[in-house]
Amino acid sequence: MKPLYVIKIGGNVIDNSENLHYFLNDFASLDGYKILIHGGGKIATDLSHTMGIEPKMVDGRRITDIETLRVVTMVYAGLINKNIVAQLQRFSCNAIGLTGADANLIRAARRPVKDIDYGFVGDLNPYSVDSQKLAALLETAVVPVFSAITHDGEGQLLNTNADTIASSIAVAMSGLYKTSLVYCFEKKGVLRDVNSDESVIREISSSEFAGLKADNVIAGGMLPKLENAFKAINSGVSEVYIGKSDELPYLNEQSFGTRLFE
Amino acid sequence: MKPLYVIKIGGNVIDNSENLHYFLNDFASLDGYKILIHGGGKIATDLSHTMGIEPKMVDGRRITDIETLRVVTMVYAGLINKNIVAQLQRFSCNAIGLTGADANLIRAARRPVKDIDYGFVGDLNPYSVDSQKLAALLETAVVPVFSAITHDGEGQLLNTNADTIASSIAVAMSGLYKTSLVYCFEKKGVLRDVNSDESVIREISSSEFAGLKADNVIAGGMLPKLENAFKAINSGVSEVYIGKSDELPYLNEQSFGTRLFE
Repeated sequence: MKPLYVIKIGGNVIDNSENLHYFLNDFASLDGYKILIHGGGKIATDLSHTMGIEPKMVDGRRITDIETLRVVTMVYAGLINKNIVAQLQRFSCNAIGLTGADANLIRAARRPVKDIDYGFVGDLNPYSVDSQKLAALLETAVVPVFSAITHDGEGQLLNTNADTIASSIAVAMSGLYKTSLVYCFEKKGVLRDVNSDESVIREISSSEFAGLKADNVIAGGMLPKLENAFKAINSGVSEVYIGKSDELPYLNEQSFGTRLFE
Repeated sequence: MKPLYVIKIGGNVIDNSENLHYFLNDFASLDGYKILIHGGGKIATDLSHTMGIEPKMVDGRRITDIETLRVVTMVYAGLINKNIVAQLQRFSCNAIGLTGADANLIRAARRPVKDIDYGFVGDLNPYSVDSQKLAALLETAVVPVFSAITHDGEGQLLNTNADTIASSIAVAMSGLYKTSLVYCFEKKGVLRDVNSDESVIREISSSEFAGLKADNVIAGGMLPKLENAFKAINSGVSEVYIGKSDELPYLNEQSFGTRLFE
């Protein structure tokens, strides 16, 4: 199978135009099939403030009401997505900006109301991503760039977690490509010592992960990240990388951040 | 050659959610290859007001400064485009929302500063539209939906006239498809008597057009519209229709609005 990189960047890259510029240049230089997924960042929060929309929280969880959905659709799918695409084009990367609604590539289900009504938030299932259609796009030599907006197939756009979109795309594509899932975040990788940025663990197999958990080396916010990563690996993804966006060029040498594998 | 419809809708359709709903249902039902181009409407103006951005005019012409470009990118390429796509998906039309930056489909040149600096406005030339790439997309059975945003290939998004995008796409595609260009506007067609909405002229050939101009039947704002339409026909487009969006179903019977031909 041909290799495919599915790469996710978050607010820490998007909010800093210099970081974003360098990342996009590096991303454009990466050989082979690739898909980019970007989160939101502060711009949506800033625009909400300007528009007088107060963030709605219930039990500490953010709610996507109809006004907030309008804002994230404008900022994620419009402003951020199209500026990323234009910059990638400048770097000779033939990017195409997408939401899950486009070509019906990612169909979500609005999160059911239990204790909390999250509003217009979409959850994904194993059949959400149309891998055949996405592969057909890849084969026309374009590079898909997804914002974290999906739809329900009934005309409703939905705000959807960008990490979840990235892993769902990676799992769905793993039947057609040898798929590597790459998460860029603020650290250089999984750290053995949280106080030392240089203590990156280079590789973790699923059996080693069990040991590191038992020894409490991996804990806190890193734990669910890695649980989800190994879930993707168990569902067909070849490997997951977690590292810092400015080290993306090392991905070709397989020495980017922490590599997780079966 | 296979037939292709290139259809442009403007603010009068977009600003009225009921009109838009019916139009998109009719558009979804239209057989064969088709491309939709949409303008902006009042939403961008409203958002600018909310954000405290005053419209900049020079000699009566609207200027797209950097703040206005941000607003139109959010509203046209984000909010309007993605809601149109989600609604078309609901009507089982496999729409994909695009700007000219996406897949480098429409590359514009920033309008040169002469007497007026129009700001971030893009002009098109005969080589602006990548017809091969657009055809490759059409052949994957998706329906392209363009907002009126293009790019310069150097990382800069540009605000671009939607009518011009529609005619440029139609001309570029006319080498590959038997292309009909369709403009939806507020009237049922070209009227013989401006005071009677029912006085639609059904067909106008280019030689008849010369006569109607000489007799002053066609004058005012309709004149440049028709001049541009016949320019497109002279450049390879098979026919141009001008009519009202709610009469789109008549297009299949070639009895939509006014039909212009060579």
